[in-house]
Amino acid sequence: MVPHLTTALSGPLLALEQTLLDNATRIEQWFRNQWIAHTPPFYGSVDLRNSGFKLAPVDMNLFPGGFNNLGEELLPLCVQAANAAVERLCPKASKLLLIPENYTRNLFYLQNVARIASILGLTGMEVRIGSLLPDLTEPMRIELPEGGSLLLEPLQRHGNRLGLAGFDPCAILLNNDLSAGAPDILQGLEGQRLLPPLHAGWATRRKSLHFAAYDQVVAEFASLLGLDPWLLNPYFGRCGQINFHERTGEDCLAAKIDGLLARIRVKYAEYGVTETPFVVVKADAGTYGMGVMTVHDASEVIGLNRRQRNKMSVVKEGLQVSEVIIQEGVHTLETVNGGVAEPVVYMMDHYVIGGFYRVHGERGRDENLNAPGMHFEPLAFETCCNIPDCRKGPDAAPNRFYAYGVVACLALLAGALELEQTAPAEVVAA
Amino acid sequence: MVPHLTTALSGPLLALEQTLLDNATRIEQWFRNQWIAHTPPFYGSVDLRNSGFKLAPVDMNLFPGGFNNLGEELLPLCVQAANAAVERLCPKASKLLLIPENYTRNLFYLQNVARIASILGLTGMEVRIGSLLPDLTEPMRIELPEGGSLLLEPLQRHGNRLGLAGFDPCAILLNNDLSAGAPDILQGLEGQRLLPPLHAGWATRRKSLHFAAYDQVVAEFASLLGLDPWLLNPYFGRCGQINFHERTGEDCLAAKIDGLLARIRVKYAEYGVTETPFVVVKADAGTYGMGVMTVHDASEVIGLNRRQRNKMSVVKEGLQVSEVIIQEGVHTLETVNGGVAEPVVYMMDHYVIGGFYRVHGERGRDENLNAPGMHFEPLAFETCCNIPDCRKGPDAAPNRFYAYGVVACLALLAGALELEQTAPAEVVAA
Repeated sequence: MVPHLTTALSGPLLALEQTLLDNATRIEQWFRNQWIAHTPPFYGSVDLRNSGFKLAPVDMNLFPGGFNNLGEELLPLCVQAANAAVERLCPKASKLLLIPENYTRNLFYLQNVARIASILGLTGMEVRIGSLLPDLTEPMRIELPEGGSLLLEPLQRHGNRLGLAGFDPCAILLNNDLSAGAPDILQGLEGQRLLPPLHAGWATRRKSLHFAAYDQVVAEFASLLGLDPWLLNPYFGRCGQINFHERTGEDCLAAKIDGLLARIRVKYAEYGVTETPFVVVKADAGTYGMGVMTVHDASEVIGLNRRQRNKMSVVKEGLQVSEVIIQEGVHTLETVNGGVAEPVVYMMDHYVIGGFYRVHGERGRDENLNAPGMHFEPLAFETCCNIPDCRKGPDAAPNRFYAYGVVACLALLAGALELEQTAPAEVVAA
Repeated sequence: MVPHLTTALSGPLLALEQTLLDNATRIEQWFRNQWIAHTPPFYGSVDLRNSGFKLAPVDMNLFPGGFNNLGEELLPLCVQAANAAVERLCPKASKLLLIPENYTRNLFYLQNVARIASILGLTGMEVRIGSLLPDLTEPMRIELPEGGSLLLEPLQRHGNRLGLAGFDPCAILLNNDLSAGAPDILQGLEGQRLLPPLHAGWATRRKSLHFAAYDQVVAEFASLLGLDPWLLNPYFGRCGQINFHERTGEDCLAAKIDGLLARIRVKYAEYGVTETPFVVVKADAGTYGMGVMTVHDASEVIGLNRRQRNKMSVVKEGLQVSEVIIQEGVHTLETVNGGVAEPVVYMMDHYVIGGFYRVHGERGRDENLNAPGMHFEPLAFETCCNIPDCRKGPDAAPNRFYAYGVVACLALLAGALELEQTAPAEVVAA
């Protein structure tokens, strides 16, 4: 389970990690003050890319799957953090309804649901699982490969409360990213805390708004430490009117890509980076690595073939893509056993609870490692992310993981700001 | 590091542990509600005794030493819990002054201080160590056997603030139990949070008040689960006017011991326990296992010889003993590698963060294992205490440790009540 990092890290990233290490006390203080001003999301995960010269988040998930990939030894830390999350957001809650994605055959995902339920159960919540599956009329038990089982129960709405047969929960935790929109059954609930709030779902959420909030967060953090924010932050732009099928908006997209690549080239020159810059075009609303394209030159998005256009135009739940984010690509320099690796960091409340590597032997350093149907090897982090060891160098595992934890927390804080900034008026008033 | 429990546990304790396991959800909920109503102490440790038919705390320390005996792998859990404690009690604090005991040669103790400082440092506090040593005029650096060093600095009082040269802390953490009284330099501080409060020190604290609060806590907890509170609670009494030197109060003491032994015999008969009942007489104010005597019959305290009287009459810092608590003795049934073992559980905020066994090969099952000058083998718990595993039996290590964690939290809650109940008027108003 111990990742052997074969990455030969040198140059600016070591300097960046050293800066984070040297300033650990100020960083923790700064975060504590931020978390007084901003309520952390209940939970989250952050995909990081480590290019050797830059360490940055490329995605921040407010409905994290993959809890089953965290090491067993991290369970106590998860339970303690979950306790803090419950105390902060629903201290009086004793019954919690967990609403997962509508998957009944993805056993990896269902193990994730079982793990979340188990963690919350250990905090003293009675946890049951309600399904949004439209055709579920009876409870359905699914046996899990690692033992145990999950019971999916049909949701029942009574007036303004949501529950299950014989189960009226105080709080509802979504592990469903609402890509298909926020269903009526979740609207207008009263006296029940919905976590995360509905506007965190992909029906309304936009990656570009998250990264706009991340810009704010990193600007303040970088100025605290006298760092160039770019070392922690991928450039991005967006196109709001694109139709891959009808080939409208391609020029706008190409122009934005051109502009972004030009800005990246300036930075590469400044830092003496000899890599080839690239950008990643992604659906602005959506997840699971669908609708993602790596682009090295703007011309690549002109005249896409049918297969490429199909791939880009539809994401999860058949949602049409008309808005895209164009994000500076960050090469993955990390490898584990010869495979390209991408760290994913998990948080509950504002605590980092661990992480793992997505490892893929057949993908390139500039490719998306979270692709549909893709098999990745989860590899639990060797240590947790909150214990830097100042006696060791910045490339020692606890220190690398500390740097990952810090950057993931910056993205989590951006998630908190984003949720504040995008809250509908009635949520702000509540 | 893995304790092999050779204890042959059977009978009522398994039933008790099974009850705790079966009710883990209700227990956690109950605790969560308790911690809404009562502020947990910043930290604490609890000495437990496990007799096979009874699991009970025998001491609750509000100034815990021995953090160095906790397993390294528990550090992330400690840091997370310390973060919660800081957020609750001094969220804006950035500088913390740690005041340890006045030991300069007890390297075990000083390693404990270093560990506490390191844990708090990892939460983002700037931590420095101020000493109450009366003759300390210059900073004194002490090298530690495991590497690193401690810098003890002389305290400086400026008006109503306490600090060090060039260091004006927001919060002051005592790891000094104030056996010698609360010194003037700690009195009347303004704008600085003192943790734990002065009245937690042994100059004012009484074990009997702690166990009176524990009675309240266990009464409610036991009724929640339909348990006999005695299974979790040692009987106790107190004598408030005793002078071992002048042999006054011996009759009162003997009568109280007699009464307590009679009550214990009734319970032993009820549960079919064939052990010989005993009580432990301890100084009502004081710690470090000084002034402690095991008594099987009231006659033993009549006509004590000079050595015994000397032993009982003086505790730490030369404090005279005039008040004693008489506590039902709980046999230690646990052994580790043939030695008698006593579990000690550590908490920060309301989180159990781990524990260890005090192991002593030469002491009896009814003796105090925390005696002055005594060498015990710390043996870190195999697992932490917050992850029961319902699929396993009650004697499986995670479940035994869960039971330990629950009972330790009951004692911690009693500590919180005790501090509320004994707070001087100006603390209550603050």
